[in-house]
Amino acid sequence: MVIDCHGHYTTVPKEVQAFRDAQIAGRADASAPHITDDQIRESVQPQLAFQAARGTDLTIFSPRASSMGHHLGDARANLQWARLCNDLIHRVCTLVPKQFVGVCQLPQSVGGSPADCIGELERCVNELGFIGCNLNPDPSGGHWTSPPLTDRAWYPLYEKLVELDVPAMVHVSASCNANFHATGAHYLNADTTAFMQFLTADLFKDLPGLRFVIPHGGGAVPYHWGRYRGLAQDMKRPPLADLIRNNVFFDTCVYHAPGIELLLKVVPIDNIIFGSEMVGAVRGIDPETGHYFDDTKRYVDAMPGLTTGDRNKLFELNARKVYPRINRAVRLKPDTTDR
Amino acid sequence: MVIDCHGHYTTVPKEVQAFRDAQIAGRADASAPHITDDQIRESVQPQLAFQAARGTDLTIFSPRASSMGHHLGDARANLQWARLCNDLIHRVCTLVPKQFVGVCQLPQSVGGSPADCIGELERCVNELGFIGCNLNPDPSGGHWTSPPLTDRAWYPLYEKLVELDVPAMVHVSASCNANFHATGAHYLNADTTAFMQFLTADLFKDLPGLRFVIPHGGGAVPYHWGRYRGLAQDMKRPPLADLIRNNVFFDTCVYHAPGIELLLKVVPIDNIIFGSEMVGAVRGIDPETGHYFDDTKRYVDAMPGLTTGDRNKLFELNARKVYPRINRAVRLKPDTTDR
Repeated sequence: MVIDCHGHYTTVPKEVQAFRDAQIAGRADASAPHITDDQIRESVQPQLAFQAARGTDLTIFSPRASSMGHHLGDARANLQWARLCNDLIHRVCTLVPKQFVGVCQLPQSVGGSPADCIGELERCVNELGFIGCNLNPDPSGGHWTSPPLTDRAWYPLYEKLVELDVPAMVHVSASCNANFHATGAHYLNADTTAFMQFLTADLFKDLPGLRFVIPHGGGAVPYHWGRYRGLAQDMKRPPLADLIRNNVFFDTCVYHAPGIELLLKVVPIDNIIFGSEMVGAVRGIDPETGHYFDDTKRYVDAMPGLTTGDRNKLFELNARKVYPRINRAVRLKPDTTDR
Repeated sequence: MVIDCHGHYTTVPKEVQAFRDAQIAGRADASAPHITDDQIRESVQPQLAFQAARGTDLTIFSPRASSMGHHLGDARANLQWARLCNDLIHRVCTLVPKQFVGVCQLPQSVGGSPADCIGELERCVNELGFIGCNLNPDPSGGHWTSPPLTDRAWYPLYEKLVELDVPAMVHVSASCNANFHATGAHYLNADTTAFMQFLTADLFKDLPGLRFVIPHGGGAVPYHWGRYRGLAQDMKRPPLADLIRNNVFFDTCVYHAPGIELLLKVVPIDNIIFGSEMVGAVRGIDPETGHYFDDTKRYVDAMPGLTTGDRNKLFELNARKVYPRINRAVRLKPDTTDR
């Protein structure tokens, strides 16, 4: 079984974004759009076609990250928007239950408290069957005005994550800072930034059950694994493998074979979860290979030296470990490996 | 001959930082420190010992990056500080002329104009024999309040760089944003950010003679080379190799063999310049190899498949091409390859 831990609903019917635009503009006619079941089924055909063509079975599916726009609305508007986006994910997962399982957007806002997100998180997990959330480390959209992820201000939300036994993917949204291209800079910078925050604090001593997925292959981190090992040593921090063991996981959203090869070479296999970010940041076909850039399964499949056990971990078992609610959510046979 | 394009004066006598601290604190007793020639010679013994031990010949040497602190002072204070730091580099290069050649710190400041840096750049190049500068893409120290590097506000400074035929290394300083660890996040984020800015604009069409070195192996860029190739294609931008050919170069400050291997595999050899960031961000010995993390020459030396021609480019010829004033600065035999 192949589980893709990183898919966003980037093909959402256009009425949805039109509502958000109207809401942010403060237009009086802004009202939640009526989307039919047929529209929803139709909208996820690209994902289903890619799943079939690439040989993946199940996508852990969340609202479009670039549209979260936590910097755009106030707490009330962003809660309405998060509920709407999460309800749509729930409808996808209900209409096409074998291929999608939900992860929620949080109603974060600039200056808002992480604790304000607990209600929507609980609703999504307890009522909608979601198995995780996307947590934006920079609700300001590129101005980085929030405290680091290791700050105690985040702890109430983290405690709820631990209680519910769901992980958070560290994922920023669009950038409103002209310096940062969203998918070409802001996303990767956030991944790198989060990892270094985790390295320098005792967050996982305080909350051993807290789990983060760092997407986009961990930003710059695996490429600079030696730098991070050296920094950790200079700072008298634990070895990286110990530091991340039960708490930090990287996806495989790296769009060329040499990058995947590096990732698999330096990061422990237990900390890598298959992901493609499909349909996402890069949509074209690589002229050097003739295949889609984001068909990351091909790169993994072609890697020499991976055992069957490694592949099972990467494609399935690690996802089950990090997202334990996946079993009841999609009625999978529970795996028998230890957590 | 082995030229290391990335060395900072991190071992500067402590009176120098004490002056800066006093200057920023506005203390009445802040006056430029008196540093003797013996102190300067003594202070660079670590670099000279590493050069000898590692088999490098010449370091392109600039003031300590983390101490530039463009966010700390106003334009006047930062000009005084830049002049002091650059004069010290000049003294190093005068006292130990065969092993060091200078690159200057610019007197940038928050809200200051890039054009304000032209005078100090000209002084350093024309009077002190410097061969390049470090350009901070974020003088705010982690708040990213300046326009992108492709904005026309930077053009007056760029035109002077072209006229003087000197490159700029894109290098931030310390971070005053709690989200960003300096050497573990801010540095790498800046490298990634700058590359994506270059990818999305026509800067090098406007200024074909402008050259940037992106340090720390290009941040996240080589690891995500497929992502960038795909983004460039989706955005109908030129292929990356064309986009960077004469204008963007990466150093080799990547502190483990798999990272160097990736860099050499994906980035054209003509766009890679040897560098070690020594004595710098990571100071320890890698227990996995028994050698210093930042002894990057070892990783390059061990790479299979590099021809002698490739090695000559990486260790010497590319540096001469990007920093053409290096020849007169250290009285090297000019190389005969085409620019």
